[in-house]
Amino acid sequence: MDNLGTIFLSEVVGTAMLLLLGAGVVANVILTKNKGFGGGWLLINFGWGLAVFAGVTVSYASGAHLNPAVTLGLAAAGKIDSDNPFLTVIVYIVAQLIGAFIGAVLAWLAYKNHFDEEPDPAAKLGVFSTGPAIRSYAWNLITEIIGTFVLVFVVIGFGKGGDPDTNTPAGLAALGALPVAFLVVAIGASLGGPTGYAINPARDLGPRIAHALLPIRGKGSSDWSYSWVPIVGPIIGGVLAGWLSLVLLPAAS
Amino acid sequence: MDNLGTIFLSEVVGTAMLLLLGAGVVANVILTKNKGFGGGWLLINFGWGLAVFAGVTVSYASGAHLNPAVTLGLAAAGKIDSDNPFLTVIVYIVAQLIGAFIGAVLAWLAYKNHFDEEPDPAAKLGVFSTGPAIRSYAWNLITEIIGTFVLVFVVIGFGKGGDPDTNTPAGLAALGALPVAFLVVAIGASLGGPTGYAINPARDLGPRIAHALLPIRGKGSSDWSYSWVPIVGPIIGGVLAGWLSLVLLPAAS
Amino acid sequence: MDNLGTIFLSEVVGTAMLLLLGAGVVANVILTKNKGFGGGWLLINFGWGLAVFAGVTVSYASGAHLNPAVTLGLAAAGKIDSDNPFLTVIVYIVAQLIGAFIGAVLAWLAYKNHFDEEPDPAAKLGVFSTGPAIRSYAWNLITEIIGTFVLVFVVIGFGKGGDPDTNTPAGLAALGALPVAFLVVAIGASLGGPTGYAINPARDLGPRIAHALLPIRGKGSSDWSYSWVPIVGPIIGGVLAGWLSLVLLPAAS
Amino acid sequence: MDNLGTIFLSEVVGTAMLLLLGAGVVANVILTKNKGFGGGWLLINFGWGLAVFAGVTVSYASGAHLNPAVTLGLAAAGKIDSDNPFLTVIVYIVAQLIGAFIGAVLAWLAYKNHFDEEPDPAAKLGVFSTGPAIRSYAWNLITEIIGTFVLVFVVIGFGKGGDPDTNTPAGLAALGALPVAFLVVAIGASLGGPTGYAINPARDLGPRIAHALLPIRGKGSSDWSYSWVPIVGPIIGGVLAGWLSLVLLPAAS
Repeated sequence: MDNLGTIFLSEVVGTAMLLLLGAGVVANVILTKNKGFGGGWLLINFGWGLAVFAGVTVSYASGAHLNPAVTLGLAAAGKIDSDNPFLTVIVYIVAQLIGAFIGAVLAWLAYKNHFDEEPDPAAKLGVFSTGPAIRSYAWNLITEIIGTFVLVFVVIGFGKGGDPDTNTPAGLAALGALPVAFLVVAIGASLGGPTGYAINPARDLGPRIAHALLPIRGKGSSDWSYSWVPIVGPIIGGVLAGWLSLVLLPAAS
Repeated sequence: MDNLGTIFLSEVVGTAMLLLLGAGVVANVILTKNKGFGGGWLLINFGWGLAVFAGVTVSYASGAHLNPAVTLGLAAAGKIDSDNPFLTVIVYIVAQLIGAFIGAVLAWLAYKNHFDEEPDPAAKLGVFSTGPAIRSYAWNLITEIIGTFVLVFVVIGFGKGGDPDTNTPAGLAALGALPVAFLVVAIGASLGGPTGYAINPARDLGPRIAHALLPIRGKGSSDWSYSWVPIVGPIIGGVLAGWLSLVLLPAAS
Repeated sequence: MDNLGTIFLSEVVGTAMLLLLGAGVVANVILTKNKGFGGGWLLINFGWGLAVFAGVTVSYASGAHLNPAVTLGLAAAGKIDSDNPFLTVIVYIVAQLIGAFIGAVLAWLAYKNHFDEEPDPAAKLGVFSTGPAIRSYAWNLITEIIGTFVLVFVVIGFGKGGDPDTNTPAGLAALGALPVAFLVVAIGASLGGPTGYAINPARDLGPRIAHALLPIRGKGSSDWSYSWVPIVGPIIGGVLAGWLSLVLLPAAS
Repeated sequence: MDNLGTIFLSEVVGTAMLLLLGAGVVANVILTKNKGFGGGWLLINFGWGLAVFAGVTVSYASGAHLNPAVTLGLAAAGKIDSDNPFLTVIVYIVAQLIGAFIGAVLAWLAYKNHFDEEPDPAAKLGVFSTGPAIRSYAWNLITEIIGTFVLVFVVIGFGKGGDPDTNTPAGLAALGALPVAFLVVAIGASLGGPTGYAINPARDLGPRIAHALLPIRGKGSSDWSYSWVPIVGPIIGGVLAGWLSLVLLPAAS
């Protein structure tokens, strides 16, 4: 029971760190007058990848899921070790949403001046939540499914290769949080073009709620009509990866 | 025998992951309206390097060759441990071709909207297969030979330095799939300029077949006249590296 | 007592290395005629991150704080092991300021020609010290507090995850100085836009003194009116991180 | 005696790999029609850093100096373990020059078409050897001294931190060739602006000889008047680092 408290705190802290740095790099690149303005896609990819690195580092106590799609994918693969897996999964997901909300608020504070001077409402929303380059719900959903599948499938792979005794995600192994950070750079570089790679329902929904609630000067719509895509797509992709890993990722020989 | 089944599955999965992310980063950078559009050569280099990282991670069960030139190079160096090396090599290569085909199809699905709206047929083919910056079969072949030589030679080097007991490629050692990922970034940055660094017959042929078969809107030629270069060059380079490693890479002292 | 001498020397050497490379990358990107001129924000982020990597590497004898905010944050978390913690903290901070001064002088020497030919006094100061993109002391302070909080909080996290026996910062663990280097890349990418991420009072003040004292051709003001922000902000952020780590970063389970 | 043969072969192979990839990335970025054309300074920095990574990997048998300044710096620090240190140093340096020559020839072959179509003779020389952004022998020399000092000093530092039993450069430790690769990225980013960071007499002289001898279409001068700077500067910097490391880098506590 106390364990659930530890999980809750750890996921809040880690996901807040993830969003502070993840929303932060987008703010740096797209909000007016920033020193990183126009810094390019690779900068955004490294920013998000290293946001995962920092978030995972401070969230060791709960295994650093930081993402409902990861939690559900691990559950689908039978990797949630708990007397009450359903309750544990709920605690993870609620904590991730709260953490993502907090992180987005902190990123807004760090970039307050630049939000105030930015004329484009779409740029302001873009710091908080993802949106499609070409709006087409079905194909946007497919892109998010594929991206999240890669995330969860490879994370499960980290825990399998090399050492058959290791059943934990690689975030806990010798390289610490680096492998998953590089993986997120990879997904951003390779699959982020069409939808901005939410690949994480909490990463998108928590900040979207923050965008709706915060007194952001000159903000526009929170684009709720798109908001289900980065929730449903990642959940499908994560669960699919969990199931398929049972078939496609054998125990190391 | 069952072992060959494991190898087959593992190489299909790993090469599919390689091509999904590898073709994906090219799509992101060169297809219209993507968020990574115009992201530059370093983004492509990191994208492909980390595609190798992800592909190797999920292909641990077969040693993660993912490339006929690596398989043949290791065979040339006497590093294929099997009762029937010829059959084993065939299984590796067939699986790599199938995996590369599947990965390219998935990348096409992830970028479906952007393929549909892209006006340039050459850009569409560029997502799938490599092509030369200056067409000149002899020199293009030499560039592919040199690039693949570096790949296979250094991969064999990973398994030799530091620990004389390690006979396996570095992809299986403490740093996991990172060294070979960085190596592929290096080859792309340093030797990718003239031909787009196929350095892998499966990586080029599998997706070229996919390009020919898929119902891609407004697609042009699959450029079969060039297709032998990224097959023959890498095979020569890989086998050369395997042989020369026996002379140039002594056992660690 | 001799130990304090070792700490002093080690922090001078490490912080000088940090500033030589850190000021150096800014000089390369913003001073006229350099080969890296206009190289972009990601180049600056990697330059500073790897400056930390080199500085930490040569400062192993003192634990490589290189930053008064780190020293004070570790003190706040009860991690300064000394008979006279107050004196030890003073030795760290004085050494860091001296080292930062020396490093900035060396960077000026390495780029002497380019300082001489640069017409813009603001660019010259920008090599030495940070300045805000939008001047607003309160919000600039908040940005520096948040950035330094992330630095110190995650550094403390490095020492906690994975191995409960490790009480030292991750800079001393298996990956050496790499994790903190990646962390500084992350902070620059994600939180560096508004103020140029001093996140270190010595990094800003030491070079500002050097700027004021050196005979730099055509130099302008050293902007002392802003100089308190990158001192006070990082101290608040570092101490806050030290305290909050006691609550938010439990011992590894 | 046989040991000297191993050293010779290993340094030839490693330095050839270094120059093939190092000259290669410059060719990719500055020669016309390449896919990486105009790819920027960070691409060059990563290209050279990872060239070191590959070169060190295949040169494990000799400790992977690949650079007369490193060999002389280690000699100055008393780290050349040999009955006849003078002869050993000579073997290292001769092998490095031969390897650098071979590597440059291979890079020329890989980019043959692009050399042929490139109109600017200065770009062709730039692939082989370094040149100053602002010609001023004294200050160019100082920049090369500082850059090479950082290289050798931090390399010696790699062997000291963490484990007092480790007397070998970090290139032989757990992270393999990665730390020195990152260090070379750092030096390029931070100190490469004024002179193009030779920081290695063999890296500059061997390819310059190749440039003078090869039948490169439309080549211009090999700029021998500058050629002593990237020889003398790195030697001074490397020896200085070796000596000062005895004072400034104490044994790990």
